[in-house]
Amino acid sequence: MRHFADRLKEHVERRGNPVLVGIDPRPANLPPGLLGHFPAGRAGVAGAFEAFGRGVIDVVASLTPAVKFQTAFYEAYGPEGVAALHASARVARERGMLVLMDGKRNDIGSTAEAYARAYLGRVPVGAGEECPWDADALTINAYLGGDGIAPFVDVAAREGKGAFALVRTSNASAGDFQDLICEGKALYRHVADRVVGWGAPHRGESGYSLLGAVVGATYPGQLAELRAAMPGVLLLVPGFGAQGGTARDVAPAFDAEGFGAIINNSRGLTFAYERPDLRDRHGHDWQAAIEQATREMIADLAENTPAGKLRKPDQAGTA
Amino acid sequence: MRHFADRLKEHVERRGNPVLVGIDPRPANLPPGLLGHFPAGRAGVAGAFEAFGRGVIDVVASLTPAVKFQTAFYEAYGPEGVAALHASARVARERGMLVLMDGKRNDIGSTAEAYARAYLGRVPVGAGEECPWDADALTINAYLGGDGIAPFVDVAAREGKGAFALVRTSNASAGDFQDLICEGKALYRHVADRVVGWGAPHRGESGYSLLGAVVGATYPGQLAELRAAMPGVLLLVPGFGAQGGTARDVAPAFDAEGFGAIINNSRGLTFAYERPDLRDRHGHDWQAAIEQATREMIADLAENTPAGKLRKPDQAGTA
Repeated sequence: MRHFADRLKEHVERRGNPVLVGIDPRPANLPPGLLGHFPAGRAGVAGAFEAFGRGVIDVVASLTPAVKFQTAFYEAYGPEGVAALHASARVARERGMLVLMDGKRNDIGSTAEAYARAYLGRVPVGAGEECPWDADALTINAYLGGDGIAPFVDVAAREGKGAFALVRTSNASAGDFQDLICEGKALYRHVADRVVGWGAPHRGESGYSLLGAVVGATYPGQLAELRAAMPGVLLLVPGFGAQGGTARDVAPAFDAEGFGAIINNSRGLTFAYERPDLRDRHGHDWQAAIEQATREMIADLAENTPAGKLRKPDQAGTA
Repeated sequence: MRHFADRLKEHVERRGNPVLVGIDPRPANLPPGLLGHFPAGRAGVAGAFEAFGRGVIDVVASLTPAVKFQTAFYEAYGPEGVAALHASARVARERGMLVLMDGKRNDIGSTAEAYARAYLGRVPVGAGEECPWDADALTINAYLGGDGIAPFVDVAAREGKGAFALVRTSNASAGDFQDLICEGKALYRHVADRVVGWGAPHRGESGYSLLGAVVGATYPGQLAELRAAMPGVLLLVPGFGAQGGTARDVAPAFDAEGFGAIINNSRGLTFAYERPDLRDRHGHDWQAAIEQATREMIADLAENTPAGKLRKPDQAGTA
């Protein structure tokens, strides 16, 4: 398969935007009435999650390049929830979207290899091999150091897949450890430098590596600093929307051509029907609310960030 | 439910040892012939994992206090593998063992809460709640700081459950970040100090908190240092056995009464039938090989660590 960064660039350019739709289902936030179509119990919730995911993907597949599943919300409903995650990832793939699993996995080398093979590669089954999850990329946590990251890089390199390591996260306590000054620079800069180094041998035609970085939108100064400090590293930027990040906040994440970053929005898109204005306008048509919110985010990024350069002339104004 | 640390102490004292049996199944290491009893495909591998787990638990439930499942190896076989993990955890619980999920989960607060509820607590289902996993403890990664840890502590406090945060891991690259000197002390000491603080309001009758620490056996000096620096914090010590840690290496993890630490061994116990001497002695009886290796580890810890004090007089020599 082609290099992950080249595939991502192709998807981003085809849709003309860098929106990463986050699917984080919770029963309390599902479209009104949806749960009622499913039997009681965990399996029913899982069924509703799958239906919700399919409904979201039906809307966004033609508008955006990629989807990110937050594994926690599916694991919260046990094996039934995990089966819904698996089914939803397949739907997204079949609809032509890139699939990111947001699992923040991490472990020592031999176990990290199991995670890498699980989500990005193949595992032995009988005399052959199967792709159990076949995601395009996985988020990972680098606290264990190089030998905990190498298996993800190795498997991704073999399979045309990617990984995004947490560098500077978007939460309020991110600085507890990440901002500690260690031997002359903040810990997150140490992690950033290692991510650059680990990924450097694995750049694609786009100039970007298969090993990206998660850098929150909620600290725009650090986003600019890290874009400069991490050439060739794709940035996955969470924190847009519900967490407070705006298009102007994420603008520094992009390179001069408008590529180099994907901007995640979860609740702000997929629970858009909870917005009073969209509820008033679209009523029970929750997919229409999601579509409007997605088009708004696309237009906002086009207007206020370098991602506007991605839009081909015939796409201008379609939002 | 009673406090996690008190429940763990009770289990450890009842069995007279602190052995944490690690179940990390891989097809290539399953007992010879086992896979052949199951259909081809991922579901067959998952079925073999479940049978293997049941066979291990049959042996160790009467000997050891707790079992640790490495989630990666189950996730590697997709939803079918995750269902096998769920079934195996239930078997261990029904057989009276404490169940630790080694998932090293981590995320920002609202998502960390989903993981905490998933593995340690309850999730909303219809008008009520269910315990989707009902594990006794979960390993977690603290890179995101306090608000990524608080949900695990909160849920564990409500439910009588525990969590173990990575402090100093057992792998060769652990020092890449963990040993960086940050504002006067190594990063792992910053994490250790925060773990002490986050857990301090949640100590049980044993004096130990519900928030423990993962500290590898492969760096005995750091184990002694952290036992002293982390009063009231239970240590989960991986790295014994296949990774090179010996009983003398892990001895500093215990308090003066022989409690305060649980010692994990995975491959060295559950794949013991691969050891030439045990294969020669027990042939196809893989459970007998696991039993012998488990009894050897129990005796080794009793002889060479303060954990020997846990043994009641009537247990002496039963290994």
